[in-house]
Amino acid sequence: MSSLQKIALASVSAMAIGSAGQASELRDQALDMFAALPSTIPALNNNIITPEKVDLGKALFFDPRMSASGVFSCNSCHNLATGGDDNMPTSIGHGWQKGPRNSPTVLNAVFNEAQFWDGRAADLAEQAKGPVQAGVEMANTPANVVATLNSMPQYQDWFQASFPEESDPVTFDNFAKAIEAYEATLITPAPFDAFLNGDDNALTEQQKEGLAVFMDKGCAACHNGVNLGGNGYYPFGLIEKPGADVLPPDDRGRFQVTETADDSYVFRASPLRNIDQTAPYFHSGKVWDLEVAVAIMGTSQLGMELNEQEVDQIVAFLGSLTGEMPEVVYPVLPTETLDTPRPTGDVIPN
Amino acid sequence: MSSLQKIALASVSAMAIGSAGQASELRDQALDMFAALPSTIPALNNNIITPEKVDLGKALFFDPRMSASGVFSCNSCHNLATGGDDNMPTSIGHGWQKGPRNSPTVLNAVFNEAQFWDGRAADLAEQAKGPVQAGVEMANTPANVVATLNSMPQYQDWFQASFPEESDPVTFDNFAKAIEAYEATLITPAPFDAFLNGDDNALTEQQKEGLAVFMDKGCAACHNGVNLGGNGYYPFGLIEKPGADVLPPDDRGRFQVTETADDSYVFRASPLRNIDQTAPYFHSGKVWDLEVAVAIMGTSQLGMELNEQEVDQIVAFLGSLTGEMPEVVYPVLPTETLDTPRPTGDVIPN
Repeated sequence: MSSLQKIALASVSAMAIGSAGQASELRDQALDMFAALPSTIPALNNNIITPEKVDLGKALFFDPRMSASGVFSCNSCHNLATGGDDNMPTSIGHGWQKGPRNSPTVLNAVFNEAQFWDGRAADLAEQAKGPVQAGVEMANTPANVVATLNSMPQYQDWFQASFPEESDPVTFDNFAKAIEAYEATLITPAPFDAFLNGDDNALTEQQKEGLAVFMDKGCAACHNGVNLGGNGYYPFGLIEKPGADVLPPDDRGRFQVTETADDSYVFRASPLRNIDQTAPYFHSGKVWDLEVAVAIMGTSQLGMELNEQEVDQIVAFLGSLTGEMPEVVYPVLPTETLDTPRPTGDVIPN
Repeated sequence: MSSLQKIALASVSAMAIGSAGQASELRDQALDMFAALPSTIPALNNNIITPEKVDLGKALFFDPRMSASGVFSCNSCHNLATGGDDNMPTSIGHGWQKGPRNSPTVLNAVFNEAQFWDGRAADLAEQAKGPVQAGVEMANTPANVVATLNSMPQYQDWFQASFPEESDPVTFDNFAKAIEAYEATLITPAPFDAFLNGDDNALTEQQKEGLAVFMDKGCAACHNGVNLGGNGYYPFGLIEKPGADVLPPDDRGRFQVTETADDSYVFRASPLRNIDQTAPYFHSGKVWDLEVAVAIMGTSQLGMELNEQEVDQIVAFLGSLTGEMPEVVYPVLPTETLDTPRPTGDVIPN
């Protein structure tokens, strides 16, 4: 059954959903489109998660020496202190260059079907290799990353413990796998999960109304599944293209990946968990107000003007997707040696 | 008694210090020049330390929104994952500008008599106000910091809880005091402390020999007290000026603070705790090898060529100053609101 068919079947009234029976009905319909976070860390493809690998991945995630300059770590743009992103329109990277698209949150990203706004990376391990090499981000090379890691005996030990069956474990592939393993632990259970799991009181009345509106109006056609998005591609401006301020004409989205005309201005539907922690919005990062973002989605994707009450209800519901962060103990990183490649802020022209 | 007199009285042989009696004698002489870290967080001037204030200070320390761009936090250049500094010659800041001097470690900095390489800040609260306003560092203004903090109700609550007797607690002064309170907790007890506190086995034989050499040769004339430095000002090149690569002629150090000719090329003696975690060395950050740094100190400050064995012994001793980090739980920061000033990477010309 397609998502649109599911929407068609959902006939929840946004009016009176206060009673236990109504909450149960709302839950049944929601469970047809969404899923609660699992209670354990998900299994990864070709990447067994072990405590050693998670610890290594955390160190790598926070290590600014993975960038050429020594300024940026994964956590710079996917900051676990601020919702797993950097709260700016597009990130500032190597040489003070600006990235092309808004940095998405790393939280719960393991549940996305593919990574990046255009889905060009199949999983988090593939994703992790991108920014580290991007000239406008960390501006490093796989060879320099591996040389940096190999220069520190502590990292060598940690790679050996994380990939015990490999004779030469310090590789760029394993660097990415360890980061993926760590990121898979960054899961934030939210009130919405408690509601899906059976707690009628986990959502406020307004949040329940918002959930009903979210399903009734068709938002859930694209924003469904465990992450309420992150699992499908849709044209931004399905019904009506937003202005160039929100949808810059030079970024054609997934077209750049598939080179198929149909994919012009197609982007992965944003996953919506923790969305109220991660302004500004859209791939362009041009919209700071979640209410405005919801209203734009109404006109551009659904072809309808959501009224103020509906917007408020939806925003209230989105607030129920903000979850609890796992406790993150800040790592103590291996000490550099005389063999560690020196940081350089030099910008190499393309 | 001056430090130099203390040195003159110290007549420890670096030869045979293996027995308990010899360790005890070495400890007595060391206790005449150094002090172990206290077992509790030190009291601050005009700044009572409370758990609420420490937690607030930690949040501020890690919050990149304290910089104009949203890129840099205190932790960017004083990274608690890498010895409390950033492991580069001089830091990269706003607009990709390079700072003038090597970033010193924040660890145990509360025990320094004054802050910065030239001692221009009396304490950590005064220090904390510097980088946030420096155009080449965080490039922010006190007014914008306060507006940023006031835009987030969570920060307002935390300031109220930290400064309960104030009617308008969200101020730049209190911002600095909270950071000072947090930084006062960043204390790293080391094997050398255990030795000073009575544990003969806390240092290796080579480290004990290094301690004896460190005292005998006169290093402790400048590097003494609880931080083995950080408590006095000395000309770099007291006996012989190092080359311009190590001592750039355009940075006259404390002269820029006091405008006294005598203070030309005078710097605060570096505190030496965790020194093997914080390469590169000196205010210029030009020397990556601790052995080379020790040898330069021999020629420039003591007028003597330390032989290879002595350098090795001193470096081994310095390793005993590397302490255990307190566990740092990475903070979850307050969420921005529509009133939060927007980050800007724009560089405003002087």
